[in-house]
Amino acid sequence: MAAPAPVSPLAPASVPDMPAVAGVRLATAMAGIRYQGRTDVLLVLMDKGTAAAGVYTRSKCPSAPVEWCRKTLKGGKARALVVNSGNANAFTGKSGRDATRLTADIAAKAVGCKPSEIFLASTGVIGEPLDARKFEGVMDKLVADATAGGFLDAAKAIMTTDTFPKVATATVALGGVPVTIAGIAKGAGMIAPDMATMLSFVFTDAPIAAPALQKILSDAVTDTFNAVTVDGDTSTSDTLMAFATGAATAQGAPRIASAADRRLAGFKRAFTDLLADLAEQVARDGEGARKLIEITVEGATSKKSARRIAMSIGNSPLVKTAIAGEDANWGRVVMAVGKAGEPADRDKLSIWFGGIRVAHKGARDPAYDEAKVSARMKEPKITLKVDLGLGRGTDRVLTCDLTKEYVAINGDYRS
Amino acid sequence: MAAPAPVSPLAPASVPDMPAVAGVRLATAMAGIRYQGRTDVLLVLMDKGTAAAGVYTRSKCPSAPVEWCRKTLKGGKARALVVNSGNANAFTGKSGRDATRLTADIAAKAVGCKPSEIFLASTGVIGEPLDARKFEGVMDKLVADATAGGFLDAAKAIMTTDTFPKVATATVALGGVPVTIAGIAKGAGMIAPDMATMLSFVFTDAPIAAPALQKILSDAVTDTFNAVTVDGDTSTSDTLMAFATGAATAQGAPRIASAADRRLAGFKRAFTDLLADLAEQVARDGEGARKLIEITVEGATSKKSARRIAMSIGNSPLVKTAIAGEDANWGRVVMAVGKAGEPADRDKLSIWFGGIRVAHKGARDPAYDEAKVSARMKEPKITLKVDLGLGRGTDRVLTCDLTKEYVAINGDYRS
Repeated sequence: MAAPAPVSPLAPASVPDMPAVAGVRLATAMAGIRYQGRTDVLLVLMDKGTAAAGVYTRSKCPSAPVEWCRKTLKGGKARALVVNSGNANAFTGKSGRDATRLTADIAAKAVGCKPSEIFLASTGVIGEPLDARKFEGVMDKLVADATAGGFLDAAKAIMTTDTFPKVATATVALGGVPVTIAGIAKGAGMIAPDMATMLSFVFTDAPIAAPALQKILSDAVTDTFNAVTVDGDTSTSDTLMAFATGAATAQGAPRIASAADRRLAGFKRAFTDLLADLAEQVARDGEGARKLIEITVEGATSKKSARRIAMSIGNSPLVKTAIAGEDANWGRVVMAVGKAGEPADRDKLSIWFGGIRVAHKGARDPAYDEAKVSARMKEPKITLKVDLGLGRGTDRVLTCDLTKEYVAINGDYRS
Repeated sequence: MAAPAPVSPLAPASVPDMPAVAGVRLATAMAGIRYQGRTDVLLVLMDKGTAAAGVYTRSKCPSAPVEWCRKTLKGGKARALVVNSGNANAFTGKSGRDATRLTADIAAKAVGCKPSEIFLASTGVIGEPLDARKFEGVMDKLVADATAGGFLDAAKAIMTTDTFPKVATATVALGGVPVTIAGIAKGAGMIAPDMATMLSFVFTDAPIAAPALQKILSDAVTDTFNAVTVDGDTSTSDTLMAFATGAATAQGAPRIASAADRRLAGFKRAFTDLLADLAEQVARDGEGARKLIEITVEGATSKKSARRIAMSIGNSPLVKTAIAGEDANWGRVVMAVGKAGEPADRDKLSIWFGGIRVAHKGARDPAYDEAKVSARMKEPKITLKVDLGLGRGTDRVLTCDLTKEYVAINGDYRS
C-alpha cells in the first residue's frame, strides 16, 4: 500500500458523538484480508427480532455478497452483519458463492443463529478469491468483544480509499418516545485502486416491521444516495441496509407495522436527513475531490427528466474539470444539458454559478460580473443551477470535481 | 493562448498525399476570429450541381450553424462551405442566428449563388457572440484564392486543440471510371478548453444524387464517427458533411440516383473506410491521450446492446485511468459491463486484454500470464475484448485513455 492519502479538504469540520443504539453491538478486528496493521472486519450483532431492509447496486454483474443479501433479505430478519474491506468478493465465480456461504456459516455458528439471519458486505479488490477461512480465526473473538457503541471504529474498519470515516446520528420521537438512529458509510470512487464501493449501514432501536422499514429506505434513497455521483461508475457491490432492533419498545415506543403510519413522519424525516448527510460525506470524499458541487435543475418537464439532466451535468468530465479549474464554464453546462437527451430548449435555458446568473434565455447574461463569479468559484462548495424554462420538474444531485489526483489515484498505482 | 501542445504520440506516422477533387477548390485565411497568426477560416467552393449530405450532433442544444445546415440541407445542393475555428457560435441566442444568416449572405454574394447553397460550421468558444463581419474582409480574397487541392491546409485551418491535422483519401472505380474521395476532420475533446467539437467534411467528384449520398453517409457513420468517444461529452456543434460534385461524369462516370445501385459497392466500402480512418485519427488525438483503445464486444443479445456495453466501457473513467496506468484491470471492465443496464450474466463473461484472456466464465482465468499481459499494456494501442456469452450481437468502438493531461488541458487553462 502507498502512504495514505491526505484527508479530503472537504471533510466535515467535526465528527458527531455517536451514541449507542439499543439492541446493537459492534466489534472490529484485523483479519488480514488484504491490509496489514489495520482493522478490516466489522461484526454487528443485533438482538432477536431485528428487522432488515436493503437497497443494492443496479449492476447486472453484482458481487457474491450482494446476491447473498438479496436472497437473505426475503426473510426480513437480521441477527448479524459481517463487513470486510480489502476484497470485494466480486466476479469470483463459484468460489465467491462458496465464500459467502462459508462466511455466513462461520458467523451463524459463533452468534448462535441461522445463516439466513446473517448479512454480508465486502469491499476491495474485484476478481480475487476471498479466503473466508480468515474469518474463522476472528469470529468468536468478535462476538465476545462486541459492545454497544463503537460506530466510529466500525466506519474506520470498512474504509478503502476513503480519507475520513463517515458517521451520522439523530434522535427523534416516535409516539412520544425518543428513538436513536445511527449510520456509517464508506465511498470514495466506485472501485478504485482496484477497490471502493458505496456501503452504508443504518441502525435504529425503533420498532419498525421489515416491510415498513424497506419502504422508508427505498423512498429515502432516491434523493440521497441515488442523487450522488463521483465518477458515474457503478460498483458491483453497492449496499445500503437499515436495521431496526425494536429495543425502544422497552421505553414504550409503539410498534410500527406500516410505512403509512402517521406517527412515522418525524422518523422518516430524520432518517432521510441522516442518509442525505452520509451521502454528502461520500461526495465530499470523492477521489481527488477539491470541490463539492451541488447541481440543481429546475423547469424540467418532470422530476425524472431533471434528474437525468442533473446527472448528465454531474458526470460530464468537461464540467467537472472546468470546476476543478475554478471556471464558471456555462458553455459546458449547455453541452451537458444538450447531450442528456431530455427535452430542452436552448433559447429558454438559464444558468447560475454560485447564485449568480451567467446565462439567460439562450445567451450570456449581459449583466453578470465575471470577477464576482470568479470569487465564488474559489469556494470549496460550488452551486450550479440550471433553469430549463419548460415545466415544473426539479431535482438536485451532488458530485465533486475531476482533478489530476483522481487520475493519479486510479491510474498511477501500478506505475 | 498557451504554447501549443506537443503532437499526440498516437498520431499517424505519415500523412497521405492529398489529391485534388474535380469540382472542389479550397482557400484558407486569417480572419482573427480568436486566434492570431494562424488560419482560422476555410472556404470550400464547389461546382454547380454539387449534392450535399449531412449528419449533425444529437445535442438538444445545437449551435446556430448546425441549425442553419439542417435547414439548408433540405435543398440538397451546395456551392460553398465556410468553416471557422475560434468561435463555435453556439448558445449565442438571436445574435447567433443573425451571424449565420450574415455569413451565408456574405459568402453567397462573393461566390455568386444563393445563401441556401452555403453550408456553415463553427468550432471554438461557446457562448461568445460571433462577429460575422470579420468574414466580410476576407471572403472576396478567399474566393479569388481558391484552388484545387489544399486539403492539408484546410485541415489545419479548422483545428482547435487538435495536435495534428486529419486527412484521408481514396480512389475507387465507379462504373469503371476512377473517382476520388478526400476528407478532412478535426476532433480532440468535445468542447475543451472552451472549444473543440468533431467536424468532418468529405468531398468526391462522383456523380451521386443528394438522397443517395445522404443514405451512404448515414449508413457509414454508425460504425465510424458514431463509434468513437473521447470523453462521452457531445458537442453542440458536431458536423459531418459529404459533398459530391459529379465532375467525374466528364470522364464517363455514371450518374447514381439510388444508394441501392449495385455499381456503388466499391464506393461505399471506400467511403466508409475513409470515414473510419478519420474517426480513428480523432480518437488518436483525444485530449491528453497516450493509448488508443479498441473495444470489441461479442456475444451480446444484439448489436445495439453490444454498442451500449462498449460505450459504457469506453466512457468509464475507471477503465480509462486503469489503461493510462497500463493495468489490465478487468474488474473495472466487469463494473462497466454491469452498469450498462444491458443483458449480462456475470458467470458467462470472458475478457481479453491485448488478445490474452484474463477472465473466463465469471472469474479470473487461471491460465493467464500476468507478465505477458503487462507487456501488452505498454503498447500504444490496447485491444480490449469482452464476450458476454449470450447471443450473436457484436460491436466495436474506439476511445483513448484518461490521463492527467486531459485534466490539465480542460481544467488548468484558467489557473
